[in-house]
Amino acid sequence: MATPTAGARPDEVRRHNRTALLRRLHVDGPSTRASLAAELGLNRSTIKALVDGLAESGVVAERLPAQRTGAGRPSLLVLPQPQAAVVMAIDVRVEQVAMAMVGLGGDILGRHSWNLHRRTREPGEVITHIADSAKLLADELDVTAVGVGVSVPGVVRRADGMVHEAPNLHWTDVALGARLTAVLQAPVHVGNDAELGALAEHLRGAARGSSDVVYISADVGIGGGVISSGTPLRGAGGYVGELGHMVVRPGGRHCYCGCQGCWETEIGEAALCRALALPEDAPRGAVVAELRSLAADPSSVSHRLGEFTEWLALGLVTVVNMLGPELVVLGDLFTALPQVVVDRVRATVQQRSLVSRAVGGTRIVSSPLGRDAKLIGAAELAFEPVLGLV
Amino acid sequence: MATPTAGARPDEVRRHNRTALLRRLHVDGPSTRASLAAELGLNRSTIKALVDGLAESGVVAERLPAQRTGAGRPSLLVLPQPQAAVVMAIDVRVEQVAMAMVGLGGDILGRHSWNLHRRTREPGEVITHIADSAKLLADELDVTAVGVGVSVPGVVRRADGMVHEAPNLHWTDVALGARLTAVLQAPVHVGNDAELGALAEHLRGAARGSSDVVYISADVGIGGGVISSGTPLRGAGGYVGELGHMVVRPGGRHCYCGCQGCWETEIGEAALCRALALPEDAPRGAVVAELRSLAADPSSVSHRLGEFTEWLALGLVTVVNMLGPELVVLGDLFTALPQVVVDRVRATVQQRSLVSRAVGGTRIVSSPLGRDAKLIGAAELAFEPVLGLV
Repeated sequence: MATPTAGARPDEVRRHNRTALLRRLHVDGPSTRASLAAELGLNRSTIKALVDGLAESGVVAERLPAQRTGAGRPSLLVLPQPQAAVVMAIDVRVEQVAMAMVGLGGDILGRHSWNLHRRTREPGEVITHIADSAKLLADELDVTAVGVGVSVPGVVRRADGMVHEAPNLHWTDVALGARLTAVLQAPVHVGNDAELGALAEHLRGAARGSSDVVYISADVGIGGGVISSGTPLRGAGGYVGELGHMVVRPGGRHCYCGCQGCWETEIGEAALCRALALPEDAPRGAVVAELRSLAADPSSVSHRLGEFTEWLALGLVTVVNMLGPELVVLGDLFTALPQVVVDRVRATVQQRSLVSRAVGGTRIVSSPLGRDAKLIGAAELAFEPVLGLV
Repeated sequence: MATPTAGARPDEVRRHNRTALLRRLHVDGPSTRASLAAELGLNRSTIKALVDGLAESGVVAERLPAQRTGAGRPSLLVLPQPQAAVVMAIDVRVEQVAMAMVGLGGDILGRHSWNLHRRTREPGEVITHIADSAKLLADELDVTAVGVGVSVPGVVRRADGMVHEAPNLHWTDVALGARLTAVLQAPVHVGNDAELGALAEHLRGAARGSSDVVYISADVGIGGGVISSGTPLRGAGGYVGELGHMVVRPGGRHCYCGCQGCWETEIGEAALCRALALPEDAPRGAVVAELRSLAADPSSVSHRLGEFTEWLALGLVTVVNMLGPELVVLGDLFTALPQVVVDRVRATVQQRSLVSRAVGGTRIVSSPLGRDAKLIGAAELAFEPVLGLV
């Protein structure tokens, strides 16, 4: 039922239903009027009035489906029009910034990215480059972004986009939200990268339809985004948790966070490089190539990645015991792990986690969105306040 | 504002406001009509009508305050009447069952408890004893419980009170909710003990007014209850997480859960006994007495409890990094820890947790509700559905 409550004012009900319809089309794609009516619990005349209104203002269009299914006259499909609302998504990673313009419905209309290194990673430098690229992208595509979403690998205050600590970027107390709002002249929302990865998987990836999900972000550092009972888990003051800094190996390697043996020091990119006998700062391409060649030779996996697999599994046992997800999505760099590693991790979690046993086994899968998860999540962060206004 | 939405039907609004008023009186205690009007955002005539109606049916009474404050005629206080709604609370612990009848407003009207040992811990035995005690308590106090709340130290499915695993009780797949409903002939709700401890601290203890809280339950085993953004955190299928089974010391002692070096094996009651040079199954009284004598001699604390303190702190660093609470409440047995241990744990968490640093320091305190926290939480679990019906 899309109606908020019996007796609400007609204009409130209409706005509420319009937003629900748009969100449905934006997230789940084209659909017929009849299906929309059934899914949203609205009658056909209400759907007709809403679709007609949205079509008139160019937000949706109606078309015959490309393929006919069944006999009789095919129903028209209602399609969201990408140009009706475009947002800018920015994924600030440790070694790269990726930007995209994303249209209503989730299509990426155009993208741009550049590599970061020690010198160009300074916040002022990154912000200037973002502003320049935003202008180029907008001109190229002839669009104006109505909102901006930004993903950052660090501890972020959602209310105002203050980046408290992004250790792998060497950023501390950067007022990223305020500074980007000033240069981009559009509402800017900043989120933790792992949280946005989780959001993307929940809306458009492996976690569609799952209400309790943990997304493991594996870039240079390790992070985790948690969906609990269908909504993102957030801590006090809007700060999200940092799964990468659970201590899995007391007395282990020193971590910049002040602990020893954090999950990140045991399974982050540097640890993976050590396991693969690559230099700790090997280029990402070399790491992925080495993982691919290992995947082709499963017999050597346990020799080379046995200890890595054990630490990955051990951390996930704790994550599953603490948070009770039905699904764990391994993101980013971990999508390149050989399937045999994922299988072994799944078996270990199933065997050792009493919560996993209680829920009849926790699913553990590779992210289908891969490297784009955080960019897509940043776009959705920007879309959220926009959908009610289109 | 207590009104649900503009335009709801008058009888819905009245019922909603009545429940809000009752919950306010139940949780926060007696108050004047003027304060109730201000807090609930209702006008005085609405409050008058509600209070008059509740007074007429004996649910509240109005009295002059015992102490006069300020000049002029003192305002009458509206007081919840305990007998108007009585629930039964049951706290099944590993070594004891505690039961209480709790009246509207939260007063314990009467209680009863008995010790468990290996033989009497069998589910059928416990259920029979509960039924007998329930009858005795009801007769003694001349009350009928309108609902029952049960706390169990294990993995519990909230929907139907199925206890999947309560390892320290040696219970597996016990349909406790259904079996107790049959013998007690009242609605029974079963919850995980740590979650109910968290609920009690949130409503009536150290966590009042805090929206992100972790309660650490320390009985024979270690558990954790989490309040996130003001609501209890729950995993897939209604199963709550098990903080006691995060692996803090890989390769450490074997835990019944299938892992080695769980937090519970390092800081549970048996570990505390080892640290205190007591037998692992020393009676609770002896453990508490030993902790009290240590508290009187702070210089020996770091010698005796240094390693224990380190594991407690290390686990909390992970908990704080993952969940970002503003407050951690140490419950049960841990309320007997010397203050110097709590202070040291707080300092370590503040120093090593990057999330704690981001929120400006996580408060860590002893539970003011102590051993009653879970019993109080169980009562509140039973009250929740009742408050709308009184």
